[in-house]
Amino acid sequence: MDSITLQGRLSDRDAWTAQRCSISKALDVVGTRTAMLILREAYYGARRFDEFTRRVPMTEAVAAARLRDLTDSGLLRRAPYQEPGQRTRHEYQLTQMGLDLLPALLGLMQWGDRYLAEQPGGPMRLTHIDCGEPIHVEIHCAAGHEVGPGEIAMRRRRGADT
Amino acid sequence: MDSITLQGRLSDRDAWTAQRCSISKALDVVGTRTAMLILREAYYGARRFDEFTRRVPMTEAVAAARLRDLTDSGLLRRAPYQEPGQRTRHEYQLTQMGLDLLPALLGLMQWGDRYLAEQPGGPMRLTHIDCGEPIHVEIHCAAGHEVGPGEIAMRRRRGADT
Repeated sequence: MDSITLQGRLSDRDAWTAQRCSISKALDVVGTRTAMLILREAYYGARRFDEFTRRVPMTEAVAAARLRDLTDSGLLRRAPYQEPGQRTRHEYQLTQMGLDLLPALLGLMQWGDRYLAEQPGGPMRLTHIDCGEPIHVEIHCAAGHEVGPGEIAMRRRRGADT
Repeated sequence: MDSITLQGRLSDRDAWTAQRCSISKALDVVGTRTAMLILREAYYGARRFDEFTRRVPMTEAVAAARLRDLTDSGLLRRAPYQEPGQRTRHEYQLTQMGLDLLPALLGLMQWGDRYLAEQPGGPMRLTHIDCGEPIHVEIHCAAGHEVGPGEIAMRRRRGADT
């Protein structure tokens, strides 16, 4: 059983490679450990340079480069703020594009919780605020079914190149 | 609005850092571009060394190192095979641990399809085999609600260190 069943012209794997793959494009933008951990901290509410450098193991130079990349790519936006008596500084706010990466990050967390954590279930408990029930990252189809590996078909979108 | 609301002792971000974070542990194992793309190919059905090196841009040395790491970490298992007249070789099969990373990878694909693809929706169409409807990676709670950013609470698990 393959976890994803290739259909149509994709079914002959020798005849194509995933050159326009969106996973690959996503990794071009957020494929570094520090980019992912900066986003994690942004989800937790961090906005300011000092907090990112305090909470993610990285040099200030790496932090500055990553924050610039994430801003240029559209996941964060820079916004000015000013403390009394201080010069104007900038903080980093998540955009919709940045927010929309949350399922992928929580998918990594869920997998780490299951297989790599020192404590069963991992150190954190994530719940739905409204009802208090624990949350999970799942694959669903538009008809509402939960979809597991082995139940997914993939074909080339009409008119698309791979 | 924060995308994840920190509760309990976590709510003072100055008082903790995410030292035991499962995202960080996951990135220790699958935090390289080539590891992610090798897994993508495994989901598509690739098993053999030559196919991984043909379909993922990387040297044979990198491929060998990554496949060894993914095997040592438990995402792949090596299994012998033999073509007629050839010596025994090994192929790489996904384990349950490897299969369980699929939501995170598809979360990256979905995000790339939305924001980075040349064609609207990306080059591939993924559907539920049983009903033909398109699939999505979503955050759900155990009560069945779909959960968006801003609707998630996080607190330290009882007895856990961060």
